Amino acid sequence: MTIDHAAVCDLFAEYGALIDTAKFDEWLDLFAEECRYQIIPRENLDHGLPAGLVFCDSRAMLEDRIRALREANKYNIHADRHVIGLPRILGNGLSAEAPFAVYQTDQEGETRLFATGLYRDRLVLVGSRLKFRDKLVLLDTFAVPTLLATPL
Amino acid sequence: MTIDHAAVCDLFAEYGALIDTAKFDEWLDLFAEECRYQIIPRENLDHGLPAGLVFCDSRAMLEDRIRALREANKYNIHADRHVIGLPRILGNGLSAEAPFAVYQTDQEGETRLFATGLYRDRLVLVGSRLKFRDKLVLLDTFAVPTLLATPL
Amino acid sequence: MTIDHAAVCDLFAEYGALIDTAKFDEWLDLFAEECRYQIIPRENLDHGLPAGLVFCDSRAMLEDRIRALREANKYNIHADRHVIGLPRILGNGLSAEAPFAVYQTDQEGETRLFATGLYRDRLVLVGSRLKFRDKLVLLDTFAVPTLLATPL
Repeated sequence: MTIDHAAVCDLFAEYGALIDTAKFDEWLDLFAEECRYQIIPRENLDHGLPAGLVFCDSRAMLEDRIRALREANKYNIHADRHVIGLPRILGNGLSAEAPFAVYQTDQEGETRLFATGLYRDRLVLVGSRLKFRDKLVLLDTFAVPTLLATPL
Repeated sequence: MTIDHAAVCDLFAEYGALIDTAKFDEWLDLFAEECRYQIIPRENLDHGLPAGLVFCDSRAMLEDRIRALREANKYNIHADRHVIGLPRILGNGLSAEAPFAVYQTDQEGETRLFATGLYRDRLVLVGSRLKFRDKLVLLDTFAVPTLLATPL
Repeated sequence: MTIDHAAVCDLFAEYGALIDTAKFDEWLDLFAEECRYQIIPRENLDHGLPAGLVFCDSRAMLEDRIRALREANKYNIHADRHVIGLPRILGNGLSAEAPFAVYQTDQEGETRLFATGLYRDRLVLVGSRLKFRDKLVLLDTFAVPTLLATPL
């Protein structure tokens, strides 16, 4: 089975938009029941080090994590903006990569680059809906003090 | 009727490209005769404040605005670059959102991030061409001294 | 013949991804045997000055150039990230433009904007594969000390 280019684009677009509008319940629903979500500094991956910044291997664990982030976020008020580049669809369309830049705007309305990286994902069809089965966030930027204020 | 994913992508791509090459007549032609163009700081929208930075509710008004911007631009010479992320197509394809980052390069060739935000648009088919019916530019960045030098 | 929107998106996505993972042999294979690759500061183009930063008019020349860049890169260790915006497909689909932002992350994990610009490309079908026939990198940013460390 081959997945449609537009469906993959839509999934990534949803992903970024739902974080940026803090709709985390809908965001969680982009993941399959059985899923994995990891944030790993690119350097660690390059050196074969498994240690990541975030590792969730079920949606329940991801939900817990999001709840904690939202709590932390009360003390670091900012707005996120994900700009996700063209995705690269691999194999049969059930793997995809997309580069991203995340910007943050503080309460004074100043915007700065927060982080860049690459999503390297496995996708799955749940009924007719495409969802994330395994999301790997390869993070270029690791000099990030407020890293865990929102998912990436 | 459902609008094609590629047609929505094309419309956003044209939108950014025509600003960046200062082809404002062609840019205006991306809007329907009856149209609205607004720039609103995201914070205002979040707090239910209607006050925007730009409000044009006809194409004639938008034309006037562009003419004024071009005049102002003579004293703030820079080049824009819009990087527009994957769009999110809503409902039947006549609503769409896309995140953006705009960069400016000055006459010394130094580039900096100018603003980020989200386009939240209603589209309309005029004959067989997709156009903007109602363009809302939700601006993350409001600490922008030279804000109105070009449309966003 | 008309080229598919998805195929053009895929080509640009591959282009950025292969630079960012330093897979330069695969990257070279995105170019037709007879090809041209140029980097020109946008200002030069605007003023009709032909002088560019890079000019390769065959794939062999581009290969040489890449080899030199990789050598230079040993002394300027960084990771690239291309975020390529929505492409604008022109005419019959054998011309396309796409805006880009390139970020670099240094060995301390700090990311900064490196350059923005526009790809203005002619494409060609080689068998059933879309490739670059003529790639023009219009560079907004020319105040770039480490410019030639990787292709753009």
